[in-house]
Amino acid sequence: MSGQMSLADVLESALYVLDLPAAEEFYTGILGLTLHSKLEGRHVFLKCGNRMILLFNAEATAVTAGGPNDAPTHGAKGEVHLAFAAPDREIDQWKQHLVENGVEIEKEIQLRGGRSIYFRDPSQNCLEIASPRIWGIPEETLSSRT
Amino acid sequence: MSGQMSLADVLESALYVLDLPAAEEFYTGILGLTLHSKLEGRHVFLKCGNRMILLFNAEATAVTAGGPNDAPTHGAKGEVHLAFAAPDREIDQWKQHLVENGVEIEKEIQLRGGRSIYFRDPSQNCLEIASPRIWGIPEETLSSRT
Repeated sequence: MSGQMSLADVLESALYVLDLPAAEEFYTGILGLTLHSKLEGRHVFLKCGNRMILLFNAEATAVTAGGPNDAPTHGAKGEVHLAFAAPDREIDQWKQHLVENGVEIEKEIQLRGGRSIYFRDPSQNCLEIASPRIWGIPEETLSSRT
Repeated sequence: MSGQMSLADVLESALYVLDLPAAEEFYTGILGLTLHSKLEGRHVFLKCGNRMILLFNAEATAVTAGGPNDAPTHGAKGEVHLAFAAPDREIDQWKQHLVENGVEIEKEIQLRGGRSIYFRDPSQNCLEIASPRIWGIPEETLSSRT
């Protein structure tokens, strides 16, 4: 019965950015994501371990070329939230690394056995690095580094 | 050296919705996510396997209570994109399941050894279910069902 189906994994998380080259530099240079591909003026696609972070120019994705392999329209204005997972023991290193690269730690929260740090990307999207423990999820679920 | 650091896992992906109860019903009832917690008028937090999908009312998250455990402000208007990962062999079942539940398949794309189907949530966010193969990522990376 299809009534019992459930999704159990996220493949692509999207953010909308105002300056694609600045975003590419930030996400690859400071956060260490890997460039997968890009289309000037429209998107930068990044690998984060075995999953994807998609950075879009919302003005470009609001229209579609309508070809057989073109995605439907989408796009948002404002500050989207995204959290990356890391082991709790790495949070201090991340704080230091971000500050050394001129990124302000906007907030630090301790909850449910783990810590979160919050900061902004160059488009002011609301980023977080936290242990899955903050959701009661064990760190054994963390992807191994690729 | 902190210069070599890289993030390799996503913990929370966020969407902004116009009607939290309708979104909760859609994501739990049709997509099979598990309710983690909710705050009326502000958010619905869902488990998707070992990771989190956070549904927010952007008007509520645009302000923060400013307490020690309150997240910074964020929020976006428009249609955010999110893709769930599923094995390619399940895509047909998902199509059938969505249609049976009154969800229109807006687009189907075949690329790089896998298929994607696109559809909308009740707030018109742009959702996708696809095999990680579309990014050249093997299906062995899929989370086991919890």
